[in-house]
Amino acid sequence: MADYVKDIFWKPNIKVKEIVDGFESLGFQSINLSKASDILYKMKKENAKIILSFPSNLTTTGLRGLFAQLINLDMVDMIITTAGSVEEDIMKAIGEKFYITRFEADDIELYEKGHNRVGNLYITTDSYMKLEGFMHVLLEDIYKEKNYLATYELLWEIGKKLNDESSILRQAYLKKIPIFCPAIADGAIGFHLFMAKQDHKDFVIDVIEDFGKMIHSLTHDDKKGLIALGGGVSKHYALLATLINGGTDYAIYITTSSEYSGSLTGATTNEAKSWGKISSDADSITVRGDATILFPLIVFNALDRLYEEGVIKYDK
Amino acid sequence: MADYVKDIFWKPNIKVKEIVDGFESLGFQSINLSKASDILYKMKKENAKIILSFPSNLTTTGLRGLFAQLINLDMVDMIITTAGSVEEDIMKAIGEKFYITRFEADDIELYEKGHNRVGNLYITTDSYMKLEGFMHVLLEDIYKEKNYLATYELLWEIGKKLNDESSILRQAYLKKIPIFCPAIADGAIGFHLFMAKQDHKDFVIDVIEDFGKMIHSLTHDDKKGLIALGGGVSKHYALLATLINGGTDYAIYITTSSEYSGSLTGATTNEAKSWGKISSDADSITVRGDATILFPLIVFNALDRLYEEGVIKYDK
Amino acid sequence: MADYVKDIFWKPNIKVKEIVDGFESLGFQSINLSKASDILYKMKKENAKIILSFPSNLTTTGLRGLFAQLINLDMVDMIITTAGSVEEDIMKAIGEKFYITRFEADDIELYEKGHNRVGNLYITTDSYMKLEGFMHVLLEDIYKEKNYLATYELLWEIGKKLNDESSILRQAYLKKIPIFCPAIADGAIGFHLFMAKQDHKDFVIDVIEDFGKMIHSLTHDDKKGLIALGGGVSKHYALLATLINGGTDYAIYITTSSEYSGSLTGATTNEAKSWGKISSDADSITVRGDATILFPLIVFNALDRLYEEGVIKYDK
Amino acid sequence: MADYVKDIFWKPNIKVKEIVDGFESLGFQSINLSKASDILYKMKKENAKIILSFPSNLTTTGLRGLFAQLINLDMVDMIITTAGSVEEDIMKAIGEKFYITRFEADDIELYEKGHNRVGNLYITTDSYMKLEGFMHVLLEDIYKEKNYLATYELLWEIGKKLNDESSILRQAYLKKIPIFCPAIADGAIGFHLFMAKQDHKDFVIDVIEDFGKMIHSLTHDDKKGLIALGGGVSKHYALLATLINGGTDYAIYITTSSEYSGSLTGATTNEAKSWGKISSDADSITVRGDATILFPLIVFNALDRLYEEGVIKYDK
Repeated sequence: MADYVKDIFWKPNIKVKEIVDGFESLGFQSINLSKASDILYKMKKENAKIILSFPSNLTTTGLRGLFAQLINLDMVDMIITTAGSVEEDIMKAIGEKFYITRFEADDIELYEKGHNRVGNLYITTDSYMKLEGFMHVLLEDIYKEKNYLATYELLWEIGKKLNDESSILRQAYLKKIPIFCPAIADGAIGFHLFMAKQDHKDFVIDVIEDFGKMIHSLTHDDKKGLIALGGGVSKHYALLATLINGGTDYAIYITTSSEYSGSLTGATTNEAKSWGKISSDADSITVRGDATILFPLIVFNALDRLYEEGVIKYDK
Repeated sequence: MADYVKDIFWKPNIKVKEIVDGFESLGFQSINLSKASDILYKMKKENAKIILSFPSNLTTTGLRGLFAQLINLDMVDMIITTAGSVEEDIMKAIGEKFYITRFEADDIELYEKGHNRVGNLYITTDSYMKLEGFMHVLLEDIYKEKNYLATYELLWEIGKKLNDESSILRQAYLKKIPIFCPAIADGAIGFHLFMAKQDHKDFVIDVIEDFGKMIHSLTHDDKKGLIALGGGVSKHYALLATLINGGTDYAIYITTSSEYSGSLTGATTNEAKSWGKISSDADSITVRGDATILFPLIVFNALDRLYEEGVIKYDK
Repeated sequence: MADYVKDIFWKPNIKVKEIVDGFESLGFQSINLSKASDILYKMKKENAKIILSFPSNLTTTGLRGLFAQLINLDMVDMIITTAGSVEEDIMKAIGEKFYITRFEADDIELYEKGHNRVGNLYITTDSYMKLEGFMHVLLEDIYKEKNYLATYELLWEIGKKLNDESSILRQAYLKKIPIFCPAIADGAIGFHLFMAKQDHKDFVIDVIEDFGKMIHSLTHDDKKGLIALGGGVSKHYALLATLINGGTDYAIYITTSSEYSGSLTGATTNEAKSWGKISSDADSITVRGDATILFPLIVFNALDRLYEEGVIKYDK
Repeated sequence: MADYVKDIFWKPNIKVKEIVDGFESLGFQSINLSKASDILYKMKKENAKIILSFPSNLTTTGLRGLFAQLINLDMVDMIITTAGSVEEDIMKAIGEKFYITRFEADDIELYEKGHNRVGNLYITTDSYMKLEGFMHVLLEDIYKEKNYLATYELLWEIGKKLNDESSILRQAYLKKIPIFCPAIADGAIGFHLFMAKQDHKDFVIDVIEDFGKMIHSLTHDDKKGLIALGGGVSKHYALLATLINGGTDYAIYITTSSEYSGSLTGATTNEAKSWGKISSDADSITVRGDATILFPLIVFNALDRLYEEGVIKYDK
């Protein structure tokens, strides 16, 4: 770790790796970002089981492809996310596009056009209708094979049917890493499952089954690493998974929230140490800012290092 | 609505109602707070079905009593919250206390004492053990009567057993208002349910059953009002409930997050209009700040007005 | 100080004093707010010299009247603010009104109407023209008497001419408390002074003279109390005043910013202790939130206590 | 501008230019960052007069070198900053180092060591003493030549004496671009000037003289571009400079604050349009986040484009 501030200068064609290395001695959140990248590198080097949690708004963005790639690169051993992520990953996998607008867009005008806004992006109502059609058929098929599933099993079944290597569900299925969605009913997919249940009263998605899978996917003895992007239920469940298994050894939080209102979303990695969710001696950092900027920087720097050392491969 | 700024002055013994009325012409978030109080008043006057959502950190605070009182006063028709809220409401109902510390407390020291920090509060590990004992017996009893429940039915069963009028679950049970917890497995209670399931493989909590109850608890024709404190899964599910039923007519958001990262937690009531979650012509406001300060001010002002007009009663 | 969380309940007609007292055991920022009110009470009880700093956007709001009242009640011994505050205090004193709009207003439409937006408020271009006319005459008069002034002397001269007891400048003049504006040229008033200088090359406002006055208005031996609302230059200069005089004994910060970007505006009272701006053993608190809501609550509670004890008087 | 979201993927050795280009179609603040970079590129291509404002905490960081480099590259035509920036730029120029600590450091321990904290950095009291010695001699020398100076003249005089090409003041002097510090007395340098004045009563720094220079450094006819990092007095004065000269044609704001409290620091570029500070048809964007991360990304991308096109040179 750098011990004093160094001036930063531009030169032509600087690489992401170089700029993130330079952040180490720049100041404020750039230092935290640099540290996060180093922790990610160490997680992998130390063969930690890596848990990645993120809310659905990040799946709305282009980070969705990076999440899928990280699974494919064996950089992730457990995914925790929300119903919205599942829906949007599927929509993208079946060819839907999400559009760019402005934060200040006229929301009533958007509503009239069927443009559902998420920050400066929007998803069309038409995409939701395509999803509904797809899910209707898919849930029928799944029910025929099995009428009682844990959520992660449902998500693997979906991933099996998707024909898109950039899909999170697809990669989770291919790599057989558990993907948890503790609030599976909280979204359009909840409605799809409700509709399927109208036809098949004995069709059950059992979230308590996931709990068992979650417990047994990690052990106290494993080195563990947590990457929690944003907050909410996915971060909470990820920390539950680490808590039950003795606390994580590495932790990276990226959040735009602050800690002052006592929310988990804005809480620091230190707070998690009081619970034993993160080990007292863990290597951990909270980086404040938007994950759409911060996460690619952190990942690209760490992957470049791991690639140079031959820990990961790149073939494309 | 005031149209120009008026200076505010102290005089002795001002009432909450007066100061909040004065906020109408003060500036910035005080204006939004005043508007929120007015919207809450109108919701009730117009007999709207009122949906209240909040994350667990607010149940950690003393707002928990106010939530229970609001149900008791017939000010709430549907509750949506998280597993942590359920746990902490029960702990308080069985006599546990939550303690006050500082945001800057030494988390490793806290960990060694079994003090689990939530902002500037903490919950002892001992309280979690008391909860576990209580839940073990309770779930056995519930299983004996019924082995297949929607989450809201489970929560009503718990409320039936609690002997505390300040309990959210107790009041929800007494008033028979649905209380949803879309991520019931995301917390200690998930572990309790998992343990119960180890003994009783056929014990099922079905979150899709809740979906049906949620849909049928409201109608397109009802006037609807939403109060979303904080964000996360509880806010998202509350908006799903309004969306499916034609959009809410009144909406109050209180959040410490900002909209710039595209999270639902920081999103505005306007964003929800693009989805039809909030009606285009709804009376709605987003107030930025900590609900522990803002919500009591909003509620006390509105209840004082409703009480003066005989809409609600106070007997204690 | 409360040691555990207590449920809060509504009853009819609660006073501000009661609700703020109850905040002591509620949670998160409500606890910090309650502590701030207690510190304000102690500052006055201990006869501390009280320094109040605020940026101009708070003078845009109705807090302007409360600031003037606090000076009148001998609750403030030094004011530090910005050029915008000076301008807006004068505008209000000469009869101009500031209007209420929405944060989402159409800014190009506002521009075409001459409505200059400040959050959800606006100031008309016409008010700026009235100010310019007033200042032109006033500066001529002042120049005739004195061509070399410290900023605080200029501000007293202005206060002398204002016929409005709710004016900050007027009350500062009447009570002869120094009012500093370290960036006096940063605003419309900078332009007025520039124009006056075009006619009178020897007309000088000397901000270094203020520095001497600032140093000598406090002593190391005085008990000192600081109330810093928002941040920026006014907060920085206020802390400079306390630093030079041995550090303040009491400090209240109210800010909507967070500490993560290293700005003084979001910095904690703890950070100030590393500089000696706040004494190591000072009674100090940082409250996060909008001062238009928080500051009246803090002040009303403290003044009610001081009034009950006869420390301050109320006659109106 | 991209119209739909595209997945982002890692590949080895990606350049900063590529990742920032990819941000255009990623989501949320990454889109705004990409747009900011494009606006910076256009400013220079269109030969706009570029105004750069920043508070002192950014001079504490390694951005200080980048600011100096931007002046050297003829990318900046006017600088506006605070007293702290001046002090810290000098300290670094005379060989002092600023150190890295943690946001959660023990501030009382730091105080006892003479370590003055700024976020996760600190400046030693010893550095302030070195500065004082340097300034004492320098101000004597300056006084001998000239006893009446505008602030920008004082800063040029200082820059003339500094032997460090990475110094902001040095580069401003060499390029003869005005560097304004509207609150020059608000810092240690205020104390140095006060001490100098004790010896030389006729030593005057006249901030109203700067006002004239500020007005005449730009014209209505110039294309103008504004880069406002952070907020406070430097941002306000920069906007005053653009307002007086007919509004800026390009504007980039980077801020960690939000707009909800009506502060200028958190205000949007839209708000500035209501005042005419930014032209109605300007190309402008507000990026939310920490400038230590965002600003290098924006600059490196834009400079790479300008360098490729031969607009700027790189020789080192």
